[in-house]
Amino acid sequence: MRHAKPLPGSLVQRYLGWKATTFAENAPWYRRLATEGQRPRAMVISCCDSRVHVTSIFGAEQGEFFIHRNIANLVPPYEPDGLRHGTSAAIEYAVTELKIGQIIVLGHSLCGGVQGCEAMCSGQAPELERPESFVGRWMDMLRPGYERVKGITDPAARREALEKQAVLTSLDNLMTFPFVADAVTANEIQIHGLWNDITEGVLEIYDAKADAFIPL
Amino acid sequence: MRHAKPLPGSLVQRYLGWKATTFAENAPWYRRLATEGQRPRAMVISCCDSRVHVTSIFGAEQGEFFIHRNIANLVPPYEPDGLRHGTSAAIEYAVTELKIGQIIVLGHSLCGGVQGCEAMCSGQAPELERPESFVGRWMDMLRPGYERVKGITDPAARREALEKQAVLTSLDNLMTFPFVADAVTANEIQIHGLWNDITEGVLEIYDAKADAFIPL
Amino acid sequence: MRHAKPLPGSLVQRYLGWKATTFAENAPWYRRLATEGQRPRAMVISCCDSRVHVTSIFGAEQGEFFIHRNIANLVPPYEPDGLRHGTSAAIEYAVTELKIGQIIVLGHSLCGGVQGCEAMCSGQAPELERPESFVGRWMDMLRPGYERVKGITDPAARREALEKQAVLTSLDNLMTFPFVADAVTANEIQIHGLWNDITEGVLEIYDAKADAFIPL
Amino acid sequence: MRHAKPLPGSLVQRYLGWKATTFAENAPWYRRLATEGQRPRAMVISCCDSRVHVTSIFGAEQGEFFIHRNIANLVPPYEPDGLRHGTSAAIEYAVTELKIGQIIVLGHSLCGGVQGCEAMCSGQAPELERPESFVGRWMDMLRPGYERVKGITDPAARREALEKQAVLTSLDNLMTFPFVADAVTANEIQIHGLWNDITEGVLEIYDAKADAFIPL
Repeated sequence: MRHAKPLPGSLVQRYLGWKATTFAENAPWYRRLATEGQRPRAMVISCCDSRVHVTSIFGAEQGEFFIHRNIANLVPPYEPDGLRHGTSAAIEYAVTELKIGQIIVLGHSLCGGVQGCEAMCSGQAPELERPESFVGRWMDMLRPGYERVKGITDPAARREALEKQAVLTSLDNLMTFPFVADAVTANEIQIHGLWNDITEGVLEIYDAKADAFIPL
Repeated sequence: MRHAKPLPGSLVQRYLGWKATTFAENAPWYRRLATEGQRPRAMVISCCDSRVHVTSIFGAEQGEFFIHRNIANLVPPYEPDGLRHGTSAAIEYAVTELKIGQIIVLGHSLCGGVQGCEAMCSGQAPELERPESFVGRWMDMLRPGYERVKGITDPAARREALEKQAVLTSLDNLMTFPFVADAVTANEIQIHGLWNDITEGVLEIYDAKADAFIPL
Repeated sequence: MRHAKPLPGSLVQRYLGWKATTFAENAPWYRRLATEGQRPRAMVISCCDSRVHVTSIFGAEQGEFFIHRNIANLVPPYEPDGLRHGTSAAIEYAVTELKIGQIIVLGHSLCGGVQGCEAMCSGQAPELERPESFVGRWMDMLRPGYERVKGITDPAARREALEKQAVLTSLDNLMTFPFVADAVTANEIQIHGLWNDITEGVLEIYDAKADAFIPL
Repeated sequence: MRHAKPLPGSLVQRYLGWKATTFAENAPWYRRLATEGQRPRAMVISCCDSRVHVTSIFGAEQGEFFIHRNIANLVPPYEPDGLRHGTSAAIEYAVTELKIGQIIVLGHSLCGGVQGCEAMCSGQAPELERPESFVGRWMDMLRPGYERVKGITDPAARREALEKQAVLTSLDNLMTFPFVADAVTANEIQIHGLWNDITEGVLEIYDAKADAFIPL
């Protein structure tokens, strides 16, 4: 027998409340989304962190954003090696199937994955170096980013810079996917890099000309 | 120069509205979450689909759920091979770092990933068989599930059964992670399997004793 | 020997049911709350009345609200006189120890304490005027509120206005506590005034700009 | 202008969910409770702690329990001195107005108030000794209890013993109220002392004959 348990009553109650209000009020729209299929305007790649919900920040309607969330909002490079790549599968589906018009990479402050990466790269987290550490192998993607910012002496500034490197790494890796690069060149897709200061609610956007993050 | 664009004005405006209302109203609480760190009660593994937002269904507070979203809410088996595994990294971080008390796998009806899997497994989507198809290689995880339900003749019933197989595959694969299995055995983590009918807003939960999904 | 009696069987049975269901279903989460300590987001000050349970209205999780309940949800003024002040102790603990981010004062319709206050202030309840009447001395706090609403001729409207005065008295007295006022000024705590119509389930919130209670 | 803020949207949404489900389903009963007045079977005196909700443990219906919650579930002695006594007012109202048939004192493990008392009485919390410390002055009530258990060398056992002393102090002080003592003597009210282990969900009841707390 599987190890599946009943849902706690408080969550059941909240679901029933949602069904009686939000769902009931939107039923025609939700049903149409079900019948006609989703047609989201954008794909969002953000972190699993419980303090960053893009649906809240952008007041997202049902049907608006196709959302992939992983540790530290990282996009790996294009690797068509016949192996399993969850993030790449999500991007492929969004671009080639759903034909979304935007890809938004949303980083954030106080990111635990980025903190782990910094500890690992500075030799303070040997457990993340082990081959069987999934977090360590995932955060390896950000090692080049760490090399670029490790000279910053102020710890808070260095951490923030590394969080922004995670966003830039994803922007750069996105362009290694031929179907993304083609769509960007054809102006069928636009790419955006954001970083959210969760303490003050500030949102900064990557400005390519200035090569810097600027508060909105 | 990178291919990053300014954010569309409508999204900027919505963000500013969020900052002036939701953020402002919750600032003390959000700041405390920032200062003291997140302590979510549960990890949710759900689909990228734009029509299924778990934060809405469960009226989630900031800080409550650590959310991983991928195509078809699939958990791969435990493979400590030194390669990159995004979903496994998210699970490892939630269980070993955040010590969440629940893992909720949330599947849903009309899932595009599952539809692709069915087409592929029944020989109708050769493009998904190619090694460079990320969606195809990702959905390979569900082939055993397809074998179990392919005999169902009604197409809608077969699709729904396969969507539920995706949830069960994830529940089963979760238990191949030693740190998950140990925590489940020690009753430190509880696992829940849900399936959401997005047309009618119904939520079904997997009942291990009945080996069936039951509406809440 | 003390006058303590066994618990009635019906309550024992309900407790055992809770332990076998709600507790069992949430055990990992509850244990973590025990191990790591509570970190509630808000303090709620509400009435002892058996018809107003804030945990139900807001679908509260274990660990979410620090709840003080007294007669008529009243906060006395700041009086550091070295004597015993139970409500002030609860507020001090919530603000300085738990560092909660919100204080919610929840009043309600048909409040017996407020009814007693009205009777006392209008000369119809001499027994409440006696020094040894704990209810009378407690409700003295609301005498200035009575003076503000006594001109309302409709009895039901006057009662409701007095119930809302109880909420406003608490909001005002909260600000006489230096540690509350400082936290409010620093935007570390937000204060909310609510009034619940228990007959119709309506919740009204005090709007400071309009200086009025508005239904949600 | 007062410092009252709007309610966070997530709480508004949860309230609307409650109104559409729990309230709607119980409206006839709730309205009758409103029209006819509350007639609770018992008064419960429990702690403000966010991890102990008596309504959950005993599956309480609206209208069943008149609930006073303060720091460490303490009842002060009878002091008819014409000053303000919130806990005494709640007891007086429950006994003389509502004529409840039971008073349940519910203590619990890992109580922060009791922890503070222990620190204060053992000389490790001078800040709680100050006259303006509301928590300190409130917890003075438990000093005699501390004297009775301070010889216990194991810290966890000593803490648990002191938490139980808080319950016994309240049982003893309840009997100093003439209207409580009379009602107990006339067998119109029964008194119960409980202690809840919040880690394991165990409930222990004070057995007067054994002069000990026994798990239910």
